[in-house]
Amino acid sequence: MGKVITLGEIMLRFSTSQGTRLAQSDTLAVHYGGGEANVAISLANYGHEASFVSKVPDNALGEAVKKHLQRYHVGTEFLLFGGERLGTYYLESGIGQRAASVVYDRAHSSFAEMTSIDWSEEELFKDVDIFHVSGITPALSSSWQTLTLELIKAAKKHGCKVSFDINYRGKLWTQKEAGRVLKTLLPYVDYCSAGYLDAIHLLGITPQPNEELPYYYKKIQELYPNISVFYSTKREVISASDNQLIGTLWMDQTYYQSATQEIVPIVDRVGGGDAFCGGILHGLLNQEEPQKMIEFATATSALKHTVHGDCNQFSEEEVNSFLAAGSGKIIR
Amino acid sequence: MGKVITLGEIMLRFSTSQGTRLAQSDTLAVHYGGGEANVAISLANYGHEASFVSKVPDNALGEAVKKHLQRYHVGTEFLLFGGERLGTYYLESGIGQRAASVVYDRAHSSFAEMTSIDWSEEELFKDVDIFHVSGITPALSSSWQTLTLELIKAAKKHGCKVSFDINYRGKLWTQKEAGRVLKTLLPYVDYCSAGYLDAIHLLGITPQPNEELPYYYKKIQELYPNISVFYSTKREVISASDNQLIGTLWMDQTYYQSATQEIVPIVDRVGGGDAFCGGILHGLLNQEEPQKMIEFATATSALKHTVHGDCNQFSEEEVNSFLAAGSGKIIR
Amino acid sequence: MGKVITLGEIMLRFSTSQGTRLAQSDTLAVHYGGGEANVAISLANYGHEASFVSKVPDNALGEAVKKHLQRYHVGTEFLLFGGERLGTYYLESGIGQRAASVVYDRAHSSFAEMTSIDWSEEELFKDVDIFHVSGITPALSSSWQTLTLELIKAAKKHGCKVSFDINYRGKLWTQKEAGRVLKTLLPYVDYCSAGYLDAIHLLGITPQPNEELPYYYKKIQELYPNISVFYSTKREVISASDNQLIGTLWMDQTYYQSATQEIVPIVDRVGGGDAFCGGILHGLLNQEEPQKMIEFATATSALKHTVHGDCNQFSEEEVNSFLAAGSGKIIR
Amino acid sequence: MGKVITLGEIMLRFSTSQGTRLAQSDTLAVHYGGGEANVAISLANYGHEASFVSKVPDNALGEAVKKHLQRYHVGTEFLLFGGERLGTYYLESGIGQRAASVVYDRAHSSFAEMTSIDWSEEELFKDVDIFHVSGITPALSSSWQTLTLELIKAAKKHGCKVSFDINYRGKLWTQKEAGRVLKTLLPYVDYCSAGYLDAIHLLGITPQPNEELPYYYKKIQELYPNISVFYSTKREVISASDNQLIGTLWMDQTYYQSATQEIVPIVDRVGGGDAFCGGILHGLLNQEEPQKMIEFATATSALKHTVHGDCNQFSEEEVNSFLAAGSGKIIR
Amino acid sequence: MGKVITLGEIMLRFSTSQGTRLAQSDTLAVHYGGGEANVAISLANYGHEASFVSKVPDNALGEAVKKHLQRYHVGTEFLLFGGERLGTYYLESGIGQRAASVVYDRAHSSFAEMTSIDWSEEELFKDVDIFHVSGITPALSSSWQTLTLELIKAAKKHGCKVSFDINYRGKLWTQKEAGRVLKTLLPYVDYCSAGYLDAIHLLGITPQPNEELPYYYKKIQELYPNISVFYSTKREVISASDNQLIGTLWMDQTYYQSATQEIVPIVDRVGGGDAFCGGILHGLLNQEEPQKMIEFATATSALKHTVHGDCNQFSEEEVNSFLAAGSGKIIR
Amino acid sequence: MGKVITLGEIMLRFSTSQGTRLAQSDTLAVHYGGGEANVAISLANYGHEASFVSKVPDNALGEAVKKHLQRYHVGTEFLLFGGERLGTYYLESGIGQRAASVVYDRAHSSFAEMTSIDWSEEELFKDVDIFHVSGITPALSSSWQTLTLELIKAAKKHGCKVSFDINYRGKLWTQKEAGRVLKTLLPYVDYCSAGYLDAIHLLGITPQPNEELPYYYKKIQELYPNISVFYSTKREVISASDNQLIGTLWMDQTYYQSATQEIVPIVDRVGGGDAFCGGILHGLLNQEEPQKMIEFATATSALKHTVHGDCNQFSEEEVNSFLAAGSGKIIR
Repeated sequence: MGKVITLGEIMLRFSTSQGTRLAQSDTLAVHYGGGEANVAISLANYGHEASFVSKVPDNALGEAVKKHLQRYHVGTEFLLFGGERLGTYYLESGIGQRAASVVYDRAHSSFAEMTSIDWSEEELFKDVDIFHVSGITPALSSSWQTLTLELIKAAKKHGCKVSFDINYRGKLWTQKEAGRVLKTLLPYVDYCSAGYLDAIHLLGITPQPNEELPYYYKKIQELYPNISVFYSTKREVISASDNQLIGTLWMDQTYYQSATQEIVPIVDRVGGGDAFCGGILHGLLNQEEPQKMIEFATATSALKHTVHGDCNQFSEEEVNSFLAAGSGKIIR
Repeated sequence: MGKVITLGEIMLRFSTSQGTRLAQSDTLAVHYGGGEANVAISLANYGHEASFVSKVPDNALGEAVKKHLQRYHVGTEFLLFGGERLGTYYLESGIGQRAASVVYDRAHSSFAEMTSIDWSEEELFKDVDIFHVSGITPALSSSWQTLTLELIKAAKKHGCKVSFDINYRGKLWTQKEAGRVLKTLLPYVDYCSAGYLDAIHLLGITPQPNEELPYYYKKIQELYPNISVFYSTKREVISASDNQLIGTLWMDQTYYQSATQEIVPIVDRVGGGDAFCGGILHGLLNQEEPQKMIEFATATSALKHTVHGDCNQFSEEEVNSFLAAGSGKIIR
Repeated sequence: MGKVITLGEIMLRFSTSQGTRLAQSDTLAVHYGGGEANVAISLANYGHEASFVSKVPDNALGEAVKKHLQRYHVGTEFLLFGGERLGTYYLESGIGQRAASVVYDRAHSSFAEMTSIDWSEEELFKDVDIFHVSGITPALSSSWQTLTLELIKAAKKHGCKVSFDINYRGKLWTQKEAGRVLKTLLPYVDYCSAGYLDAIHLLGITPQPNEELPYYYKKIQELYPNISVFYSTKREVISASDNQLIGTLWMDQTYYQSATQEIVPIVDRVGGGDAFCGGILHGLLNQEEPQKMIEFATATSALKHTVHGDCNQFSEEEVNSFLAAGSGKIIR
Repeated sequence: MGKVITLGEIMLRFSTSQGTRLAQSDTLAVHYGGGEANVAISLANYGHEASFVSKVPDNALGEAVKKHLQRYHVGTEFLLFGGERLGTYYLESGIGQRAASVVYDRAHSSFAEMTSIDWSEEELFKDVDIFHVSGITPALSSSWQTLTLELIKAAKKHGCKVSFDINYRGKLWTQKEAGRVLKTLLPYVDYCSAGYLDAIHLLGITPQPNEELPYYYKKIQELYPNISVFYSTKREVISASDNQLIGTLWMDQTYYQSATQEIVPIVDRVGGGDAFCGGILHGLLNQEEPQKMIEFATATSALKHTVHGDCNQFSEEEVNSFLAAGSGKIIR
Repeated sequence: MGKVITLGEIMLRFSTSQGTRLAQSDTLAVHYGGGEANVAISLANYGHEASFVSKVPDNALGEAVKKHLQRYHVGTEFLLFGGERLGTYYLESGIGQRAASVVYDRAHSSFAEMTSIDWSEEELFKDVDIFHVSGITPALSSSWQTLTLELIKAAKKHGCKVSFDINYRGKLWTQKEAGRVLKTLLPYVDYCSAGYLDAIHLLGITPQPNEELPYYYKKIQELYPNISVFYSTKREVISASDNQLIGTLWMDQTYYQSATQEIVPIVDRVGGGDAFCGGILHGLLNQEEPQKMIEFATATSALKHTVHGDCNQFSEEEVNSFLAAGSGKIIR
Repeated sequence: MGKVITLGEIMLRFSTSQGTRLAQSDTLAVHYGGGEANVAISLANYGHEASFVSKVPDNALGEAVKKHLQRYHVGTEFLLFGGERLGTYYLESGIGQRAASVVYDRAHSSFAEMTSIDWSEEELFKDVDIFHVSGITPALSSSWQTLTLELIKAAKKHGCKVSFDINYRGKLWTQKEAGRVLKTLLPYVDYCSAGYLDAIHLLGITPQPNEELPYYYKKIQELYPNISVFYSTKREVISASDNQLIGTLWMDQTYYQSATQEIVPIVDRVGGGDAFCGGILHGLLNQEEPQKMIEFATATSALKHTVHGDCNQFSEEEVNSFLAAGSGKIIR
């Protein structure tokens, strides 16, 4: 089993029940999550030693975050307490034709307002196999653009593999700004989650009408030959309750694609991508065959869509049983 | 923006949760609604000045109706308090193959038992663009047959357009009785919601095996050339959770039809027709293009099916975003 | 109307809400059910005199079982109180691609640990038309293998028809053990629910690649010519939320099959087979036409899937209305 | 064990949760109850054969009433189906200083509108020990004044004891009207629940400033020497959550009074008087000592206040355990 | 009836259910409230024309605030939409010995960050009888210290009475800072809610060991003879579920005190003071007798404690009924 | 901070909501707890390193137990997975005069059926300061009588202090049997929770009418001079919602008693004693003053009564704030 640390912001999510609009809601469901925290939980579920590196306010909400992570056996030794607030967002759950909608209230969070590295790099990266971070972190502030680069370099120095999920958010920064920062980070990355829109809009690959995803993976790799693995999901949205999901992987100069997962009805889409990412990192840590890896990662993402909350709730054994039995079928 | 008054009964609806039968239910959800109240709420959502004209008992349930209307900024200056009771019905929500079923308990309501016009017609119709009423009101009592005619005539006298939704309910009156009364009302109507079954069974149009809806719209218009606009929805029921909806419109001697809205899963079908009607009246008040009007009205009806409660919860901007993005897709 | 007794274990079922895993659940839904109790409830719903024969602990849970049966007018005069505990199981409800999963905690139950027939056979079988039991009962203990045979023989002696639902459960006994016991019971059976897997794995019929269910029904009947009626359902699992169901019946040397019921979304699958069985026994008691019987039984099973809890909540009239109207459609 | 029939109206009660006003409530709790039905349930709990005589509409709500009664093993063979509606009322639960408030919607109910005795008196009173009815029934209509007298006379003719709970409701009739009717009924009554306000305002006993309840019991008995037993509760209201209750009994020319039950917090006060009445009738049927009878009845009323719903949920054994252990104490 | 505007911040409150800690909560109840908004709702309940002046973000939460105010018929014509966020706080409800605890997350709100008066003073104060504001507003920022003074002066200029609730919050500013600002505001105030701690710690009155509240009221009035009315509540905390409340009033050089309200159990204490303030302003607008005014205000505060949410849900008639009947007693 | 291991059974508790009886409940709340697990959670809350030693089934319920413990940062390295089932019990929550009642279903649990010590004693007791166990464990089976003794001896051998909570349960064993076993265990105990009933009925101390608890503590200590600390609570039950609690401690030949905690209303009494025990052990680990220790332990027990679930949810800082502020009062 491997040792992984993931760094990023964790937020408080308030969700409506399906069929009720946000402005009508008398109660809201409470979940804690964030891309990197969700990846850590997935990996802990599969038996890896995973810790989450972040900062939360020193109040009952910060305490709730800590208990949430502990529950899934994610290490909290690098979870700092302090700062102003916990980033929050409101999810009006979608259903059928009505898409979900989101109200963000994440500015001024304890994590976003960090301006220095308040952990010991020695302790942080000791014996760590993979350091995972996403493009959301440098999008939070110019400080975090500097700090992210510094941490990635430190990780490399300590012999960790660096995993980076581009995860572009137009609400946080412009494509131009993101492109500029990514160019500083990607030279230190080993595993990268990116799609063809990232390739075109952020990394400056010229779009080719007749080319598909493998072409773009190859092109990014030409720019950053240090990146050995690319992966992402293709999602066809039939409705907010019905999506088709295909996992894709570029590894050893070869393109792999999973079977299509028809996800209907969708219970909660949040964290579906993080579950996928967790599945890929699990496969890399365990040196699985690429095809097996991409099927596993896509299956775990599909299963995530069937439970409330941000985090994957399934063990490796359960994901494999699902792959063996097929949709809705029980292995007896 | 226009000024609209709608007149009718508003009822207390008790609904089961999906998957629970009425006789098993320990709790029931409470909603207040009625066709004309729902139309008023839609129009207030779109920024029009809308008031609802009715009578409710002078107790906590009447108070709840008032607060419900106020919440959506519908005027309650013509909401009378008094009489015996609030009409009630029980909806056993359908799901999948099992259709919804309804237990009515609406007799003797404060509104149904009115026998005179207890509002000032001067105040009622002052500066009003549209007076909207439905066929349910004259179905409630012979008094209401007289009063409805009197109010429609008064509305015309004050220069209002009269909007009438036939909305035939076999549990309230016979086709024969309805036909007789409709013939007295329709000569004063400007905008009419009617379907081909209404044309045949209530208005005496001879059915033609090879003819479709436009034929019947044209035929009714020949009888009542004062009616300039006809509209209704065509609904294909796959199951209680899966319907296909098409909006239809006859205007300027031309037939318009919306794209098909595939509504699955359905959260709450009640008020879907009222949302459609609200969309049409909104288009007429704003003098929209007919095709845009029918797409908007059908979209708002589809969205209504995704929320609990009788009333459309969407702004004009949200409906247009939905039309632009498509089913389940978020505009970022 | 007929008189029926059914014998078996009734259990306490804890279910998660859909979208929540068992290990996350802060509350669980409580239902009481068991195949034979569920059949008794179906028959009581249709107006037959039905009693349930079992044993439950003498505590609040046993009391709850009694009230559950009384609620549906099932006789509890043969419900014994005593023993150690009520058998329990935990159902993590499935949804979409994720299948349901079950944790059993049924050992040592008051019923399973019975070692003698503590009812008067005279009273039990007096005026009874059908005695219904399933293969789960002899699977509980070697005592119950003896007692089941004894009771079936006694039923025959008193002139009852014996109805037997094979209902093989691999978690309770091996195919070999089941086959051995079934051979002792089936010679006394009149109506039998069995599928082709039962024929092959339990009753020793040689599988024939090109043969379908009617062949296997015929073959079992050759072994046990005393059995006049065979029935079972064929279920196609698209997902945990979407199943297709066909009812099958072998009677008067003829094979009958119902129309396909497309069940989507599924609210609660537990008890779907028992509702089907109840529909068949109702048809037999009322001497319905076979095709009508199989359509009715399949329809009632489909309806059961739309409500929470183990038991069929529908009257004969409601099932017939559903058959007349079709999926999701209301008869007005 | 005795055999008892009780006759009266059963209603649908909607209750708010504590701390929420009626006009704010999105859901309401559903209970079915009525004084006489509640008494029947108490007696069935204690092992007597009890049936409830009434009429409910032939719809899902009537069906729910039937299942409610069956659940507690109350006979429904005299429950008629038909008429217009089920009487309904809305209870805004009180808490602390805020008293409960009620909105009635009970007019035009199936039971209230009965105009003839639609049961066979032979079947109704066969082997019955006690026929129980309350003053609410003759308050419903002039028909019911006649029918109640007729039924009481028939009961006497068949050798039943007649139990009558005066239960005066100012919202249903005037004191004068009630007094007039009571004078026709009381000459046939054996057991009577009445308080000193009834004595003064309905039965014309002259108030005596220095006299307490025993005096009034004696005075009513002088008027109606046929009445052998009087009983009622004295309730001190500290707040909606805190009441003190004392049971009183006049029997064999002697006055008995229970220990004070301090009931805090109160969960649901509805049905507290009916539980008390059930306790008295149980004592009379079992020929208990008067002091034991009044302690038992008051204790069962106190326990009723600790559970939601109209009906006493306690067995004789549980009430006796409570009397033995004292408030809040467990017998181990 | 009067016309009133109130100005201040309105916040989103998340509350736990009683018995559950914040860090354990899977759902939280949603309420919208703020001192001045709550006062406006009270006054609208009593029939006055009340509007609330504030700024909220232009998103679904701002929309929810608007609907909340509309529901109670509070005018929203001065509710601006824009800025960054809605101030939020988390209330862990107290019960018994355990006090409530609060986590604030209110910084950077749309209202707090206002730096200019974005309403027309002409429109704001037109025909207004009372302008109500509290000490929380100038505590939000130095801008608001200036703007509050400016608005109060403008109100006076337009002939409004100015009502000011000192409402000192140590988490927002120091006593020294508050004292400095209050000295600039109080010379323009007509009605003032203040306690003896305010007198001593903010306004510099020397404490006198043997003096009670009337002394301090008199002393503040000596400093600010323009203030004609002082009021506040004295609260004795037995536990989080049990408080004793006394209202106090200084008017016409006379001290008035209400009867003690024993509030147990407390459902929700938030807004209790605002309900009291609303009661006083109602009395002043209606020129009630001082003793009647203080009893009414204290009673409405007591009733507020029995309902969830920030706002008084009671009409003038209901408060008077409560005063007439007493704790927990129903007027029939 | 200290290091502690606690050994015992952990059970699944199903609880009704207050005001609903078990046989009526459609849903039940799920909690996991057991005396020793609860003590471990308290100590982990206070910052000690605590692990729980037990065995649970290898299914979703065992997984839930593990996540429950992890959430509170209790070590699960000695939590074994296997065996038949998780012990279960059903708590009908009491309220007011109605006491709670319990249905046990704990026989045959994975822990109770252990017959050997399946942990390495070396690993178990390494660096451990306190080993805590209760009298429930030897009550489970004769195997556990042997194993408990063996473990206690091993603990002593490894230099641990042994903490033992007598916790006599009449449903598990007789006083005679308990007395016999306790005599074998107590010679190895350092800290002991015992009351005067234990002294008299289990340990054979002759009751003295005029003597109070200190006498009995002294007498037990004469028998077992190895025990340096005795403690227990005195609980006065006013009702199920209102208890008075006093903590008692015998240490250094001196008797200490806490102030009385008046606990009303009680949310959940389960685990109140374990919270007290956790407070004592915390005081011993930190070498607090005895009076401070007993106040702290009693306060934490009082706070536990205000939250749902078995476990103390409070930090050392929160308990101390409560002690400083007093009942229901907030420290600002």
